[in-house]
Amino acid sequence: MPECRTEDRKTRVRQVLERRQKDLRLVLANIHDPHNVSAILRSCDAFGINEVDLFYTDTAFPNLGAKSSASARKWVARRRHTDAQTMVADLRARGFQLLSTGFSERARPLTRWDLTRPTAIVLGNEHRGVSSELEALVPDQIFIPMMGMVQSLNVSVAAAVILYEAFRQREAAGMYAVPSFSAAELEALERDWCAR
Amino acid sequence: MPECRTEDRKTRVRQVLERRQKDLRLVLANIHDPHNVSAILRSCDAFGINEVDLFYTDTAFPNLGAKSSASARKWVARRRHTDAQTMVADLRARGFQLLSTGFSERARPLTRWDLTRPTAIVLGNEHRGVSSELEALVPDQIFIPMMGMVQSLNVSVAAAVILYEAFRQREAAGMYAVPSFSAAELEALERDWCAR
Repeated sequence: MPECRTEDRKTRVRQVLERRQKDLRLVLANIHDPHNVSAILRSCDAFGINEVDLFYTDTAFPNLGAKSSASARKWVARRRHTDAQTMVADLRARGFQLLSTGFSERARPLTRWDLTRPTAIVLGNEHRGVSSELEALVPDQIFIPMMGMVQSLNVSVAAAVILYEAFRQREAAGMYAVPSFSAAELEALERDWCAR
Repeated sequence: MPECRTEDRKTRVRQVLERRQKDLRLVLANIHDPHNVSAILRSCDAFGINEVDLFYTDTAFPNLGAKSSASARKWVARRRHTDAQTMVADLRARGFQLLSTGFSERARPLTRWDLTRPTAIVLGNEHRGVSSELEALVPDQIFIPMMGMVQSLNVSVAAAVILYEAFRQREAAGMYAVPSFSAAELEALERDWCAR
């Protein structure tokens, strides 16, 4: 059985795992630039996201190999999808509310969504946004209020702001003080992480 | 006298200017990567920052010329500095509380600072952080809580999260509903912006 190299390391791994939010996820839908994907994974690690969904159908799958912030990649699991319906149905069956970034009439600013609920947030391609297929499957939309002349944010910036707002709400609700994983799940993850 | 090309444009410029927060600034201190500086300016525009301080002493001044998000550059004024003491003394004389990103004993998480006060936030170099000279001049520190294995965020992500928190506090206080510039300042800025 693999073990953490030191007790300090083991304590650190356990502390981080106890703060992981198993019911908060991002769906990266055809995000093009690997730098953006890397930056998003780094933010995921920082705000306690344990796993993201990578939905790639019309964009090259991002090569995260040699990026400087690649280390965050080690600590954020990735599940690959190519079928929108299956992915969305699976997330809904597991109790997730699904929100997509967008500006439709149903869109609400991020503080108006309860992000303490099990939540998966879909982020779309840098140029084309979220596809109409995914948008039809995820009609509830979330947006970051923008006060400027340029009506857009970098996708990795948008991801971080949304994750921070989720963190803020969840921290206020005490959700980082209690593990979201079961004792058995934590033990399995700890063994796995210590072996990395 | 230059005029906006259309009435719509004029309305838009006026609306954005009325939301600009003249008493909220960032100091970009020797940030190396022009992509990061561009992304930060884009976030500044989005959250209503009208002017940033560019403090460059040991890093090449960023060339923002041909970047894709260069358009935000048009709407965020930049003041260049090379002397830390003069810059800090000037900001303090104008009533700004100065906060630097960092993790000293005096550091507090971003929600624990009152960002509705006139505030300037110093962001440092990607690798070296804020220099010891600037740190000595700006002992009050602000940080983003991080729950992960990797103890850092991309600097443009950190800037956006801090600006979003300032936006959130200021919006709750009604500060985006009332212009921070005087009528005369707004008129001068409107003429200037319409000519761009």
